[in-house]
Amino acid sequence: MTERFSFRLLARDGQARRGEIITPHGRIRTPAFMPVGTAATVKAMFPEHVKATGADIVLGNTYHLMLRPGAERVAALGGLHRFMNWPGPILTDSGGFQVMSLAKLRTIGEDGVTFRSHIDGASHHLTPERSIEIQCLLGADIQMAFDECTPFPASHEEAQASMQLSMRWAARSKAAFARQAAPGQALFGIVQGGIYPDLRAASAAALREIGFSGYAVGGLAVGEGQAKMLEVLEVTTPLLPEDKPRYLMGVGTPLDIAEAVGRGIDMFDCVMPTRSGRHGQAFTSEGKLNIRNAQFKDDPRPLDPASNCPAARDYSRAYLHHLIRSGEPLGAMLLSWANVHFYQQMMQQLRTAISEGRYQEALADIRRIFPPQASSTTPQGL
Amino acid sequence: MTERFSFRLLARDGQARRGEIITPHGRIRTPAFMPVGTAATVKAMFPEHVKATGADIVLGNTYHLMLRPGAERVAALGGLHRFMNWPGPILTDSGGFQVMSLAKLRTIGEDGVTFRSHIDGASHHLTPERSIEIQCLLGADIQMAFDECTPFPASHEEAQASMQLSMRWAARSKAAFARQAAPGQALFGIVQGGIYPDLRAASAAALREIGFSGYAVGGLAVGEGQAKMLEVLEVTTPLLPEDKPRYLMGVGTPLDIAEAVGRGIDMFDCVMPTRSGRHGQAFTSEGKLNIRNAQFKDDPRPLDPASNCPAARDYSRAYLHHLIRSGEPLGAMLLSWANVHFYQQMMQQLRTAISEGRYQEALADIRRIFPPQASSTTPQGL
Repeated sequence: MTERFSFRLLARDGQARRGEIITPHGRIRTPAFMPVGTAATVKAMFPEHVKATGADIVLGNTYHLMLRPGAERVAALGGLHRFMNWPGPILTDSGGFQVMSLAKLRTIGEDGVTFRSHIDGASHHLTPERSIEIQCLLGADIQMAFDECTPFPASHEEAQASMQLSMRWAARSKAAFARQAAPGQALFGIVQGGIYPDLRAASAAALREIGFSGYAVGGLAVGEGQAKMLEVLEVTTPLLPEDKPRYLMGVGTPLDIAEAVGRGIDMFDCVMPTRSGRHGQAFTSEGKLNIRNAQFKDDPRPLDPASNCPAARDYSRAYLHHLIRSGEPLGAMLLSWANVHFYQQMMQQLRTAISEGRYQEALADIRRIFPPQASSTTPQGL
Repeated sequence: MTERFSFRLLARDGQARRGEIITPHGRIRTPAFMPVGTAATVKAMFPEHVKATGADIVLGNTYHLMLRPGAERVAALGGLHRFMNWPGPILTDSGGFQVMSLAKLRTIGEDGVTFRSHIDGASHHLTPERSIEIQCLLGADIQMAFDECTPFPASHEEAQASMQLSMRWAARSKAAFARQAAPGQALFGIVQGGIYPDLRAASAAALREIGFSGYAVGGLAVGEGQAKMLEVLEVTTPLLPEDKPRYLMGVGTPLDIAEAVGRGIDMFDCVMPTRSGRHGQAFTSEGKLNIRNAQFKDDPRPLDPASNCPAARDYSRAYLHHLIRSGEPLGAMLLSWANVHFYQQMMQQLRTAISEGRYQEALADIRRIFPPQASSTTPQGL
């Protein structure tokens, strides 16, 4: 029998929450970090290793998958879980954000978005209904309402119009989902409204009125900076239902995540650990290391002496330096693995800290390792 | 206590031999295929997976490693085994072949070769003495005499002069090795002489006179075609000592290997399984598949239903097609793994067949899967 989607809170520490989501493909411990499997693969990682890092769920991108290999093809092959050999829970985004950031020649109308593929230039039309159809074809456990990611910066007027369009699309997404989703699958709404508290409030109210299994905060980590992002969270999460999971899309650095947990966020995704890994950046208990730097050329120490990840433990920094400098695939493989492991370890530390009433202490630890910077978050979901 | 290098024959079937080499870092079952770890990594593979395929030994390239990260650096970091996290036996080539095929502005003299690095243009000088010094710094269990790989085609006169130079270098390699090698390490000589039986005979005699722990056949798989290669083996291996391992350098396709085993060869190396994998070519029990082909777009079958390799068993051809077409690192990772596994499975089948007096049957199986072609071998060691 398929498990129904459910969420329960296990502990609180201030605004920080520890919880558990149940999906048809298993349990997600929250706060959760979801590695991004853009094109049905967490880049340069075997799925067994993704799982072994402690990841309970991965994210797939509707935009990428609709273009290649195509949602109908994935469905005919048994769905995204089987296709990518990931038996655990999967969340798919709606495609809305990436249409804005990657596609060419976009035209937005009330109905949806027409655009050209960045791969082959072919024309596509994406609507709330088609986005949900794709996400159902993929078989995602958690699906996202189709929205427009409000550009940053945007005037109040622009942000309002964009948010209102997203809310109409959210209602259509919900209706489409109700018609075709499989038992146990869940749909999340996405709060928009840019940096304007009144618009965030209006958006949250509109979504609650429609009713979703979870609520995401979208349109952040697009250049507004960490301080502004946290400000928006502080006025937004109190307006979301206590008993549903909250997902901050496309965030972020370790400190972004740790801070957002303290504002009541339960779920995160970001390409940062894998993308940084491919470029020679490592997240470690000693901070962020750029392993390309000459200082590591003769460094016999493992990447992270405090880590129990094979990638961070069994190879010297000198070797990783050599691999990355030489463009060897193993360099990206090891650093992606080590970084995703680091993120998952941090999430586990945050979960434990919340249970033990030590969230502030855990946050201070992370702040010490990764001192705050003015703008430390990359655009979401790319 | 360090194991001494030794070789013993366990079974024979015609000219085909099954045996066992003992090195300071462990046992090598022969006939053996050695995956190529060019720059201290078997490309796109974790060392645990290389081992799990059944590989007992990997090959490292002196030319690549001397340029980057540098032999002295590897030595200071504890040697190549530790550097690349490969605890098993390692064979290094002498650098001679790759200086000829990759370096720029080569000048060959009696002393050695002066060349410029293909990476940064820096000038280097490689001699028999320096090649052995590098191989000792790397800590290779099996080291190769420095030689000139005779170009193909070459006249008898050219091939003779080149072979004679290599024989003088072989004697100098032996002397250098005797001065500095660690206990248990072994040095192999390399028979040259192009396609000329009299030169191969003279080369084999010269090497036996010097005395080596093993004998390689070099200068083949450089464009002469499989038939000519096998002809040369037929006149060469009978001239090599029965009680020493024989290594055919840079070979080759599954059928090349299976045929050469029947001519008394014990060891092989080739980039083919990993390089082909990165380019979407798969070696399977159904033959060679080009997974990029559109025919695999919707193919739900695993890569090789007869394989117990996770990479060949747990992912559909459609998924592999998608990964390779999308340029996803996981495509190269899975196909490299599956191909090295296929090669190792074949070696195990050949070893078992030799013990059971069924070598010809095993050869026929491989010939059925990979029908002979005029020229099926890529240049060695690249």
